[in-house]
Amino acid sequence: MNFLRSYLPILDWGRHYTRDALSNDLIAAVIVTIMLIPQSLAYALLAGLPPEAGIYASIAPIVLYAVFGTSRALAVGPVAVVSLLTASAIGQVAEQGTAGYAVAALTLAFLSGGFLLLLGVLRLGFLANFLSHPVIAGFITASGILIATSQLKHILGVNAGGHTLPEFVMSLLSHLGKVNLPTLLIGLVVTGFLFWVRSGLKPLLQRLGVKPGLAGVLTKAGPVVAVVASTLVTWALALPEAGVKIVGAVPQSLPPLTLPSLSPALLQSLLLPAVLISIIGFVESVSVAQTLAAKKRQRIDPDQELIGLGAANIGAAFTGGYPVTGGFARSVVNFDAGAETPAAGAFTALGLAIAAVALTPLVYFLPNATLAATIIVAVLSLVDFSVLKKTWAYSRADFIAVAATILLTLTLGVEVGVASGVGISVLLHLFKTSRPHVAEVGLVPGTQHFRNINRHDVTTDPNVLTLRVDESLYFVNARFLEDLIQSRVTEGCAIRHVILMFSAVNAVDYSALESLEAVNSRLKDMGVGLHLSEVKGPVMDKLKTTHLLHDLNGKVYLAQYDAWSALAAQPSRRAAE
Amino acid sequence: MNFLRSYLPILDWGRHYTRDALSNDLIAAVIVTIMLIPQSLAYALLAGLPPEAGIYASIAPIVLYAVFGTSRALAVGPVAVVSLLTASAIGQVAEQGTAGYAVAALTLAFLSGGFLLLLGVLRLGFLANFLSHPVIAGFITASGILIATSQLKHILGVNAGGHTLPEFVMSLLSHLGKVNLPTLLIGLVVTGFLFWVRSGLKPLLQRLGVKPGLAGVLTKAGPVVAVVASTLVTWALALPEAGVKIVGAVPQSLPPLTLPSLSPALLQSLLLPAVLISIIGFVESVSVAQTLAAKKRQRIDPDQELIGLGAANIGAAFTGGYPVTGGFARSVVNFDAGAETPAAGAFTALGLAIAAVALTPLVYFLPNATLAATIIVAVLSLVDFSVLKKTWAYSRADFIAVAATILLTLTLGVEVGVASGVGISVLLHLFKTSRPHVAEVGLVPGTQHFRNINRHDVTTDPNVLTLRVDESLYFVNARFLEDLIQSRVTEGCAIRHVILMFSAVNAVDYSALESLEAVNSRLKDMGVGLHLSEVKGPVMDKLKTTHLLHDLNGKVYLAQYDAWSALAAQPSRRAAE
Repeated sequence: MNFLRSYLPILDWGRHYTRDALSNDLIAAVIVTIMLIPQSLAYALLAGLPPEAGIYASIAPIVLYAVFGTSRALAVGPVAVVSLLTASAIGQVAEQGTAGYAVAALTLAFLSGGFLLLLGVLRLGFLANFLSHPVIAGFITASGILIATSQLKHILGVNAGGHTLPEFVMSLLSHLGKVNLPTLLIGLVVTGFLFWVRSGLKPLLQRLGVKPGLAGVLTKAGPVVAVVASTLVTWALALPEAGVKIVGAVPQSLPPLTLPSLSPALLQSLLLPAVLISIIGFVESVSVAQTLAAKKRQRIDPDQELIGLGAANIGAAFTGGYPVTGGFARSVVNFDAGAETPAAGAFTALGLAIAAVALTPLVYFLPNATLAATIIVAVLSLVDFSVLKKTWAYSRADFIAVAATILLTLTLGVEVGVASGVGISVLLHLFKTSRPHVAEVGLVPGTQHFRNINRHDVTTDPNVLTLRVDESLYFVNARFLEDLIQSRVTEGCAIRHVILMFSAVNAVDYSALESLEAVNSRLKDMGVGLHLSEVKGPVMDKLKTTHLLHDLNGKVYLAQYDAWSALAAQPSRRAAE
Repeated sequence: MNFLRSYLPILDWGRHYTRDALSNDLIAAVIVTIMLIPQSLAYALLAGLPPEAGIYASIAPIVLYAVFGTSRALAVGPVAVVSLLTASAIGQVAEQGTAGYAVAALTLAFLSGGFLLLLGVLRLGFLANFLSHPVIAGFITASGILIATSQLKHILGVNAGGHTLPEFVMSLLSHLGKVNLPTLLIGLVVTGFLFWVRSGLKPLLQRLGVKPGLAGVLTKAGPVVAVVASTLVTWALALPEAGVKIVGAVPQSLPPLTLPSLSPALLQSLLLPAVLISIIGFVESVSVAQTLAAKKRQRIDPDQELIGLGAANIGAAFTGGYPVTGGFARSVVNFDAGAETPAAGAFTALGLAIAAVALTPLVYFLPNATLAATIIVAVLSLVDFSVLKKTWAYSRADFIAVAATILLTLTLGVEVGVASGVGISVLLHLFKTSRPHVAEVGLVPGTQHFRNINRHDVTTDPNVLTLRVDESLYFVNARFLEDLIQSRVTEGCAIRHVILMFSAVNAVDYSALESLEAVNSRLKDMGVGLHLSEVKGPVMDKLKTTHLLHDLNGKVYLAQYDAWSALAAQPSRRAAE
C-alpha cells in the first residue's frame, strides 16, 4: 500500500478531499481554462502543428499529472520553449503541415515520456542538475529571442522560415516586399495592447479600486480580450479576403485516440531531441513546482515528478498532442487563483474538453497574427540579459558558460546551444578544480590556529613546509599538487618535513592516492618527511585500506597543531608579505 | 635573456658543462646506442614502417629534445604505445608499405609536434591530467596485450591483420594452416631467451661476482645478443629460402630531409589521432622524467616539456621519422648508465647516425621474428592487471574506469578505448560530487566542537538544524542541497533555524549561489531563519559581491559555536543512533 501510495500521490490527497477544496479548485479551473484556450492555440502554432493539437495536449496530460504528480499547483501542458524545441526537432524529419509532421510530434512526446518514466523509475532525476543555472538562464533568454523572431513572420504575414537567428533574419529580410498590411496592423495593435496590459493595466485597475489579487488575474485575461476583439474585427471586415491568415476550421471533437510511429529510423532521429526536451522540460517544471510548494510548506519529490511528467507525455502521444511540461505562467495563475489540489487540473481538463467540442467554431476568424503577438509578448518577458552582468560580477567561468550558451543557441540552434552549454560548464568546473587553492600556512602566535602566511603574521620554521589544500584531490588536480610539492622542495633545500593539511579535502580518488604515493617516495629519496594532518573520517577510512599510510615517510596527525609541535624545531616569527 | 633561458634550457646546463660530465655522458651514450639499435628497428616494424624509420626517429628528435627539454636523463624516440597508436591511425588512411603510409607517419608527427608546441606556448600542460591514473593504467595494460597479439603474426610467419583483439585472434586463427616452422622456431627460442634474460640472467651474473649496476646494464643488452645470434643463424642456414622473413636491405644513409603532407583531407583525418598521441606520449614522458628528476632532487617543467617534445616531433617529421616521446626503458638505461646532461642524448644521436650509415648492412639477415620477440617481451612487462584489484579495493568508481578502459581498448581499439576512459572518469567524478556527504551535527558536550549526530553523543536543539556540507557547491550538486533542506524542514516542523556549516565548502558557483538564494527565500516564506557559519575567506569574498548576504533571513557567524550560542534556546542531550 505504501508502495502504491509513493507511485500514486493521488491516493494521499484524494482521501482528505473536502468541499472547501472542491470549490477553490473549481474557481481556479475556470480562470485557468479561459487563459489556456488562446495560449494552447498559440503554442501549437509555434510548434508548427494545427491549433487543436495545443488544446488536446492540455487535456489528457493534465489528468495524468493529477494522478501521478506530487505538486499541488503545477499546470501541465504545452509551453513556449518545449514548443520551439519540438518545431526544431520535427522540422528535421518532416514537412510542416503534413500528416508525417503530426505523427512525428506524437512520437516525440512518446519518446520523451518514456525517457522521463525511465529516469523516474531509476531515480535518476539528479541528471537534470548537469544543466547549470547559467546555462538554463542563457538558453531561456536565447530561446525567447528565437521564438519572438520566428513569430515575426505571422505579424508581417509572410512565409519566412529558418531555425537560427541569422536564418530568421535573412529570411524575413528577403520577404519584406511581400508584407501584408492588414495583418501587420492587427499584429502591431495586438502586440501594443498586450504590452500595455502587462505594464499599465494592473496599476490602473488598482487605482480604480480593484483588489491586487483580482487585478492580477484580470491582467492575465488580456490575451482573451485580444483574441475576442481581433476575431470580431477580422470577421466584420472580411479581412481573410485581404490576405489576413486565420486559424480557420478546427475540428469539433474530444481528443482523438492517436498512435505514435514506432519506425526505427524515426525513433532514432528523434531520440536525442526527446532526451533534450525531457530534461529541459523537467528542469523548468521542477523549478516552478518547488517554488510554489515552498510557499505552502509543502514539498515535491523530484523523482516522482519524472513519473508524473512521463505519464503526461505518454498521454499526449496517444491523444493527438505533443511534448508537454509544467508551465510557469499557467501554474502561477492556477496557484494565485486558489487551486488547492491536483483536482483543479482535472477540472481544467474538463473545461478544455468542453471548449474543444463546443467553442472551436468561434475561433475560425482568429488571425494568426494575434496568436503570434501573444507568444511574442509572453516570451519577451523571459529574455533577461541581466544574468550576463550578474555572472560577470560573480564568476568569469559562469559568465563564459552563459555567453557561450546564448551565442551558440542563437547562431547554431537550440540543440547545439544547450549541449555546448552543458559541455562548457563541465569543462570550466574541471578547469577550476584542476588548480586548487593551496595555501602555505603558519601558526598564529598565542593560538592553535594555522593561517595563510601571505595574509597573516604567523610563526614558521624553515625546516617545515605546511600546505593546506583547499580542494578534494582527484585525477584532474593530482599532478598539480605533485608538481607544486616538487617545486617547493627543490627550491628551498632547508625543508626537512612537508605537512599536508587535509581539513578541506573531502575525497581522495585513486589517481590522487597514487600521486601521494609518488610524492612520498620522491620525498623519501630526498630525505624529506611527508606528514598528513586533520584528515577527515571518510577520507581516513579509505586511506586505511591502502599501503600509503604504511609506507608514509612520516606520520598522520589528528590536528595540525600536533604535527607542528612534533616537527617544528626552530620556529621563527614571520610577517605577512 | 631570462626569457630565452626559460625556452632554451640548454643555455642553463650548457654553461656549466664539465669534463667529468662529458665522460659520464659519453659512456651512457655508448650503452644506450647499442640498446637502441634493435629497439628502434622493432618499433618501426610495430608502427608498420620500414626499419630505418625507427633509427631516423631516434636521431633528430634526441638532439632537439636536448636543446629544448628540461629533463637531464630523458631519452626521446619511438616507444611501443605510440608506435601502436601510429599504426592504428595511419592504417585508416593509407596501405602499409606504400609511400603514402610513410608520408602519413611524417604528417602525424608534424601534427603531434605542432599540437604539443601549441599546448606548451599556451601553458596548457594540465590538460594531460584528464587522463586519470586508472585510465592510463588500463590503457597501457590493454595496449600491451594488443601489441603482443599483433606481433604474433611475425612469430608465426603469417600475414594476419586487424586493429582490435577479436580481429587479431580471428585473423591469426584463420592463418594457422600457413605457419612457417623455421620462423616459429626462431621466434620461440628468442622469446624464451629474452624472458630468461629478464628474470634469470641478472641473479646469475650477480652470483658470478658481477656488480648489480653492471649486471643490470648487461641484462638490457639481451636483445642485442638475440639480434646478433639469430642474424648469424639465419645467414648461415640461408633461412630466407625456407620462408623466414628478414629485415633485408636498409638504405645506408643519414636521416633524409622529408616533408609532411599538408593535404587538408589528410590533416583533418589525422588531427584527432595526433591529439591523442600527443597527450598519451606527454603523460608517459612526464611521468618518467619526473621520477628520474626526483632521484637527483632536480625538477622538470611540464609546460617546457611540451615544447621539448613538440620540437622533437617536428624534427621527426622532417627527417624521415614518426611520432616520438620520452621512453621509459631507454630513459632508465640512460640514467642508470650515468648520463648527467642532455648532451648524453646528443652523443646517442651521433652513435645512431654512425649506425645508420655504417651498420645497416649487418641487419640484412635479421629475422622479423626476432624483432617481434623483443617487442612481445618488452610490452608484456607493461601488462598489469593488479590495478583492477587495487582500484576495486579502494574505490568502485576508479575500478569501473579501469575495467571499461581495458575492455573498450581491447574490443573497439585504442582510440575509442582511451576516449571512453576519459569520458567515464569525468562522469563518475561528477556523479560522486553530485550527492555530497552532508552531516547533521550537534555540539560535543564540554567543547566547542560539532560532530555528526549519527556518530557521536552530542547536544542538539529541536528548533535548530545544523548541516555540515562536505563538498564545494556547484551546479551538479546545488539542487541536491536545495531538496535536502526542503525535505528536512518540512519533516521537522519544529525547526526555526537552519545553519549551514561551510568549513569544507571550497567554492560556491553561480548556480549554487542561486540555489542558496532560493533556499533562503523559501525558508523565509516558512518563517525559518537561514544562517551560515565558518565560511572560508575566498568563498566569503565572492558572496560579498552578491545580494545573498543582504537578503539573508539570518546571519553569517565566524564559528559554528557562535551560531549555536546565539540560536539554540532549548538544547537537549541526544545519544548517537
